[in-house]
Amino acid sequence: MKKVIACVHDIFEDLELMYPVMRMQEEGIQVTLAGEQAGHVYLGKHGYPCKSEQAFKNLKSTDFDGILIPGGFAPDKLRRIPEVLKLVQEMDSQKKMIAFICHGGWVPISAKILKGKKATGTTAIKDDLENAGAIWVDAPLVIEGNLISSRTPIDLPQFGKAIAEALK
Amino acid sequence: MKKVIACVHDIFEDLELMYPVMRMQEEGIQVTLAGEQAGHVYLGKHGYPCKSEQAFKNLKSTDFDGILIPGGFAPDKLRRIPEVLKLVQEMDSQKKMIAFICHGGWVPISAKILKGKKATGTTAIKDDLENAGAIWVDAPLVIEGNLISSRTPIDLPQFGKAIAEALK
Repeated sequence: MKKVIACVHDIFEDLELMYPVMRMQEEGIQVTLAGEQAGHVYLGKHGYPCKSEQAFKNLKSTDFDGILIPGGFAPDKLRRIPEVLKLVQEMDSQKKMIAFICHGGWVPISAKILKGKKATGTTAIKDDLENAGAIWVDAPLVIEGNLISSRTPIDLPQFGKAIAEALK
Repeated sequence: MKKVIACVHDIFEDLELMYPVMRMQEEGIQVTLAGEQAGHVYLGKHGYPCKSEQAFKNLKSTDFDGILIPGGFAPDKLRRIPEVLKLVQEMDSQKKMIAFICHGGWVPISAKILKGKKATGTTAIKDDLENAGAIWVDAPLVIEGNLISSRTPIDLPQFGKAIAEALK
């Protein structure tokens, strides 16, 4: 059974977290909702609640097959957490799936894994992605090796399908 | 291309509407978000916004292959709209997919199409379903002919998959 970490923090974009989480569950993938604290209810940008099951500090990259980073303003918090950056860096080295959407790209930027890689996100962080060395692509779905990225909630049907296929 | 009506009204359960909508879009199904008014932004139970594309009164059952009824308290409003009940009744006669989740069962109850049929929903409406002649089943997914029902947001991965498969 494949296992994926889904990152949550305050002001996550509600559908950008929950649509891929449920889409993976449909495939029988075991999703672990991880936050800075375990057992904490974080609220989405629009108010949807999501309770973290595990704390990042207790997770090991070698136990998982991928990581999902939603947008909203959660990634502004997530990028400051050393354990999150370490998970992303290690999973990138292990060629495991790193999926990010919208503002989610801030996390791989801070993990410094995007140099020379094609990626997308909300236009608000186009400059941040390019300044980190990424090659900006304006497309609903960008796949470069183990990196899967999309722009906004409108792209979720394609983003979810790509994640499901990457983990098959 | 298959076409489905997704019903929206105030206090829809955010994921119960949007997860199946996006899951259908992944399959290339054309989803029409329909409300009492067209072009109105309805807010979910947790605050997610959803803009209706069409008004029920302008839709014909023969133009669609199915209808999705989310939970939350939207179905309390939807069941009072004669055009919604007519769409559900006609689509049931045409053996087209009628998918409902959580409190969504209130709409097929008021459309009087459940007599002798297995169905599920939130336990809050178990009595209403049984009093309408339905056979209550406590399962994450119940399929009886053209009727697909589930209990709560936790069941959405199975509900979405069943909808996608029914429309293939």
